[in-house]
Amino acid sequence: MTTNSATPEDRLAKLGIRLPDPPTPFGAYVPAVQTGNLLFLSGMLATSGHTVTLPGIVGKDLDVKAARDAAHTAAINVLALTKKQLGSLNLVSRVVRLGVYVAATPEFIDHAKVGDAASELLRDVLGEETVSSRLVFGVASLPFGSPVELEAIFEVKP
Amino acid sequence: MTTNSATPEDRLAKLGIRLPDPPTPFGAYVPAVQTGNLLFLSGMLATSGHTVTLPGIVGKDLDVKAARDAAHTAAINVLALTKKQLGSLNLVSRVVRLGVYVAATPEFIDHAKVGDAASELLRDVLGEETVSSRLVFGVASLPFGSPVELEAIFEVKP
Amino acid sequence: MTTNSATPEDRLAKLGIRLPDPPTPFGAYVPAVQTGNLLFLSGMLATSGHTVTLPGIVGKDLDVKAARDAAHTAAINVLALTKKQLGSLNLVSRVVRLGVYVAATPEFIDHAKVGDAASELLRDVLGEETVSSRLVFGVASLPFGSPVELEAIFEVKP
Repeated sequence: MTTNSATPEDRLAKLGIRLPDPPTPFGAYVPAVQTGNLLFLSGMLATSGHTVTLPGIVGKDLDVKAARDAAHTAAINVLALTKKQLGSLNLVSRVVRLGVYVAATPEFIDHAKVGDAASELLRDVLGEETVSSRLVFGVASLPFGSPVELEAIFEVKP
Repeated sequence: MTTNSATPEDRLAKLGIRLPDPPTPFGAYVPAVQTGNLLFLSGMLATSGHTVTLPGIVGKDLDVKAARDAAHTAAINVLALTKKQLGSLNLVSRVVRLGVYVAATPEFIDHAKVGDAASELLRDVLGEETVSSRLVFGVASLPFGSPVELEAIFEVKP
Repeated sequence: MTTNSATPEDRLAKLGIRLPDPPTPFGAYVPAVQTGNLLFLSGMLATSGHTVTLPGIVGKDLDVKAARDAAHTAAINVLALTKKQLGSLNLVSRVVRLGVYVAATPEFIDHAKVGDAASELLRDVLGEETVSSRLVFGVASLPFGSPVELEAIFEVKP
C-alpha cells in the first residue's frame, strides 16, 4: 500500500472504517498524557464504548482468529483516541512502542499473530514509516474480560 | 479536594500518612532513573521494606478490598521513593504513566477497581492536574507473592 | 569489575561472549525505534535466531537456574540488537528501563533472581554507571513458549 500520497483519514475511509467515540476512562485516570513530543495512551481494550465485544481467554474460550478480531477492535480504539487527542492522525510521526497484552492460557504461543492484527491496522492507516517497536505477551486476565489490551506511545509532530 | 493551595507534603499530613523509607532494590538494579525530565521508577510492590504485607493471588486468596489495600501500600512506596529521589514531591509536574499489575486469576475482571486505589492516592497527594494515563492488567504472579506491582513514569519540573 | 578503562566490546570479549545476529521481527514491527535520545527495543526472547532455546513455564517446566539461563540468552539478544542499531555499545549512556517478563506459575515468587541474570550481564558489559530501573513480573505465557522476554529502553549519547 502506498502511504505517501494519502492522509491517515483518507486511508481509514478507503478501508471502510469509521472511527467511533473512544472509550472514556474506567477509573481515576485520563485517556492520554503528552510530555514533550511523546503521547502516552492509556490501555485500550477490545470494547465498543465500555462493553467488551467478545470476552474470554485466548487458547481456551477464543481462538487466534477471534483474538485477532479483538486486537483489531482495540486498535480502532487506539486510532479513535489518538484522533481525539491530536485533532488529526497526520500529527503522528511515529508509533514508538506498541504493547500487545493477550489474556492467554499458559499453553498459548501465537501471541505474535494476535499482535499483528493491531500492528497491521496501525501501519495501514498511519503509514509504513510510522511502524513501531513492539512488546507482546500473555497475561493472566484483563479488565472486564477483554481478550486483548493495547499500549501505545506515539511521537507527535511539533 | 482543593489541591492548589497546599503542597503534596501538606496533603500527606492531612491524610495522616507518614512516608516510610522506600524499599531498596531486590537485585541488580537502581530504584529510579531520570532521563531528561522523565523519571522512571522501578516496580514498587505492596511491601513494608522487603516484606510483602499480605501475599496472594487476587480472585483466589484475596478479594478486591484486600487488593485495593495492597495497591494503596504500593502507592505509598511510589510516593516515598519519589520524595527520596527528588527531595520534594512538589517537583512532580505530571504522572505520565501509571502501570498497575495485579497478580490475578484468569476469571478476575475488576482490575480497574484495584488500580483506582493507587490512582486515587496519587491524585489526592500530587494533585488533580498530575493525573496519569494508565495501564492495568492481571499477571500470573509477582515477586515475593505481592498481589500488586506499580510502574510509574513522572514528568518532573526543571 | 572496573568498567571505566575498557569498552563494552572489550568486556564482551573478556567474558568470552560473541554477539550473534539479533533476531529479526516475528511480525509487523521493527526491531527498535529511537525518538530523541531514547531507544526503545522490541521485546527480546530467549531465542537463537527464531528458535526458543528451552521453552516452558518457570516453576513448572523450568527451575530458577534454567530461567536465569533464558534471561541471559535474551540479554545477549538485547546487546546484539543494540550494537546493530547503534554501531557501538559505547553509545549507550544509560539503561533507562529493563523489563523482565517471566512466563511463570501463580506460585512462583523468585522473579527477581531471574531478572538479575539479565541485569548482571548488562551491567558487566555496559558498565555500572548505566544500571537500569527495573520492572519484573510473571506472565501467563510468552511468544513461542519462551520462558523470558526482555524490554529495554536506552538513553543514547548524542
